[in-house]
Amino acid sequence: MTSTTPPARIDAERLWADIEALAARTEPDRPYTRRAFTEVYLEGRRWLAARMREAGLETHVDAGGNLIGRWEGTDPGLPPLMAGSHTDTVVNGGRFDGVVGVLGALEAIRALQEAGVRLRHPVEVVDFLAEEPTDYGPSCVGSQALAGGLSPPMLAQVNPAGETLAEGIRRMGGDPDALARPLRRPGEIAAYLEMHIEQGPVLESRGVPIGIVTGIASMAWHRIVVEGRAGHAGTTPMDLRQDALAGAAEIVLAVERIGRELAARGPFVATAGRLRNEPNNMNVVPARTELTVDLRSHDEALLDHGWQRILDAVEAICQARRLRCSTRCLGRAPGVQADPMVMEALERAAQELGYATLRLSSGAGHDAMHVARIAPMGMLFIPCRAGLSHCPEEWAEPRDIARGAEVLARALQWLDRHLP
Amino acid sequence: MTSTTPPARIDAERLWADIEALAARTEPDRPYTRRAFTEVYLEGRRWLAARMREAGLETHVDAGGNLIGRWEGTDPGLPPLMAGSHTDTVVNGGRFDGVVGVLGALEAIRALQEAGVRLRHPVEVVDFLAEEPTDYGPSCVGSQALAGGLSPPMLAQVNPAGETLAEGIRRMGGDPDALARPLRRPGEIAAYLEMHIEQGPVLESRGVPIGIVTGIASMAWHRIVVEGRAGHAGTTPMDLRQDALAGAAEIVLAVERIGRELAARGPFVATAGRLRNEPNNMNVVPARTELTVDLRSHDEALLDHGWQRILDAVEAICQARRLRCSTRCLGRAPGVQADPMVMEALERAAQELGYATLRLSSGAGHDAMHVARIAPMGMLFIPCRAGLSHCPEEWAEPRDIARGAEVLARALQWLDRHLP
Repeated sequence: MTSTTPPARIDAERLWADIEALAARTEPDRPYTRRAFTEVYLEGRRWLAARMREAGLETHVDAGGNLIGRWEGTDPGLPPLMAGSHTDTVVNGGRFDGVVGVLGALEAIRALQEAGVRLRHPVEVVDFLAEEPTDYGPSCVGSQALAGGLSPPMLAQVNPAGETLAEGIRRMGGDPDALARPLRRPGEIAAYLEMHIEQGPVLESRGVPIGIVTGIASMAWHRIVVEGRAGHAGTTPMDLRQDALAGAAEIVLAVERIGRELAARGPFVATAGRLRNEPNNMNVVPARTELTVDLRSHDEALLDHGWQRILDAVEAICQARRLRCSTRCLGRAPGVQADPMVMEALERAAQELGYATLRLSSGAGHDAMHVARIAPMGMLFIPCRAGLSHCPEEWAEPRDIARGAEVLARALQWLDRHLP
Repeated sequence: MTSTTPPARIDAERLWADIEALAARTEPDRPYTRRAFTEVYLEGRRWLAARMREAGLETHVDAGGNLIGRWEGTDPGLPPLMAGSHTDTVVNGGRFDGVVGVLGALEAIRALQEAGVRLRHPVEVVDFLAEEPTDYGPSCVGSQALAGGLSPPMLAQVNPAGETLAEGIRRMGGDPDALARPLRRPGEIAAYLEMHIEQGPVLESRGVPIGIVTGIASMAWHRIVVEGRAGHAGTTPMDLRQDALAGAAEIVLAVERIGRELAARGPFVATAGRLRNEPNNMNVVPARTELTVDLRSHDEALLDHGWQRILDAVEAICQARRLRCSTRCLGRAPGVQADPMVMEALERAAQELGYATLRLSSGAGHDAMHVARIAPMGMLFIPCRAGLSHCPEEWAEPRDIARGAEVLARALQWLDRHLP
């Protein structure tokens, strides 16, 4: 592909109509809710599979419960290029998170077809099963299945109704017995591309339409428990209190302060997002307060340094206040890097189309994080309003979505030509 | 009564056995739970009424659902002296809160009887209905009924089962139709005495066995709502956040700081006891945090000044953080003063018995607060371990309880002689 290659013409209205059609598949009383493993989710997938077939794709659900639509290439010996994301939402979620990656990939193929383009590689549009947190526990169910990341203990986790994740995957059309090994081995996917809303405010605030994702941050989650002593709010003098909530409040502010300091050194965020106070009565000095800390950075060392700083602060605060404290690591997810060649494909495509780009790292986890274990991975971000996501107000401009799909189509062409 | 009056001999073991017997009336799986309006509460009251009758008292339940045991006096024209408290508990409460005031009064009468004492005034031992917060909403149900404080809207409040408070009172043996006016008018109770555990650490920490309560503090309850903007914990840079929980954390610390400063000027406490954070997800920057502030002081002006200081801090914090905030007063309870003559009776009794006393104010609300509207009121506090109350670890030493009952008996004698 050279700069003289004519661009595949994205039909922005058709793509927008698809987004609206899928958004209409929601629990009616709480839009937009299309949680994985539910009937309304399956209804959305039936609609999506029909749209794929209208475009001439062959559809199937793989053992991991992923819906795949395949456009054959001209060279039967080549592994597929894969592009997609997910169509499940959180409760009261949005219309774009995940969805633009799946429908954008489908539109990219339609645009290529209409431009008379044939690619050497097959292209697979993938709708990964259950990227969002599930009632069983795990998230990114389908992409983990693809990459061999679903362990037997994870498959045995149950939802509140008592169903195992394995049974849920079977109900979605998958085959949990086949998940002991990766569904695709390294080399079996030529490259994976995922378009996604940024879920942050950077692109919008800088007026840049295309973000080239350099990688997905390392993440660590910790729980801090602060224990003091309950006391009657009316009879416990101020100087005799061991107020767990006041201690936790200092910790919340320390997390924020350390987060701000380290953010000046490199990409780093620290969030105290969840707090539970006990006994949580208006007239009782709090006895026990639990909070979580979510840390993310591309720099693993900075992540560890940040947690150590927070830990030092927690200990100093609790000692000064005569509070007991304990901490526990709830989990870590190592960061992944985007593949340089896939990044180049996306960046060149955007440049040739005249769209400004910005390299940025993803602080959010995505299916791409798991696919990266078995295939060269790249992601492109499009702006979203005020960085909002996972809420009904989540919004991406139709024009920005179409531009993303256009970049996706052109990057697929470039990769098809340049991959060995 | 002079200092040569022989003390009525409290039977500390009998009193302790009574406390243990009542403590055994608890929901078996979560001691000590004897919530008003439940079967186990009625079981406790049947046991108590039987103990009252064994001591020769005439028992009845009044229209407010209060269990009353009456010991007749020698002068039929005199209004009764009243002493008591309550026998209901919170869930997983203690064995002493309320109970020592009722059983201590009963033991005081038995001791007077055994010493051959006859009083001119009748003495009524009262077990007020539902001092603790109820599922209907109101607390101090029985003492408010006595003093005419239960309004029709309060009586119409329903519990989660849909029963009105009026129906609940009827189920406890009361007559809600008779509660439009006070059950006793001013002058119809000669004096009211209530013994109670301190529910604070002052007496224990100073080694003083008897606290003479000067009054019950004014109280005010406020709710503060802080609203920011939800954001993805991984994709919202630190400098673009409007974190409601971080703002609320600053407010919690401001409440504490202002509480400490004002406590240096006079009795004052400020507590942020309840906090609710939304959406309260580990990976979401908090959007909305709600917290309560409980303020108490004997000095009404200091109470108002404290709230104004907190309000100023809230506004400054929210402005600096670009957060919206709103506040609402959830309620106020004006303070009451103990009657000087009742205080003198308690203080003289303790001195004649050789017990050190300390005058202190009550930061906690009690039935006495309501009775004070219609009768001269006095309270005596006994020490409790570490100031703990409303929990299974709540503890008062048998010796301290017996001393309290001894002071109560002697104060009744003194009042009987000195009241006009």
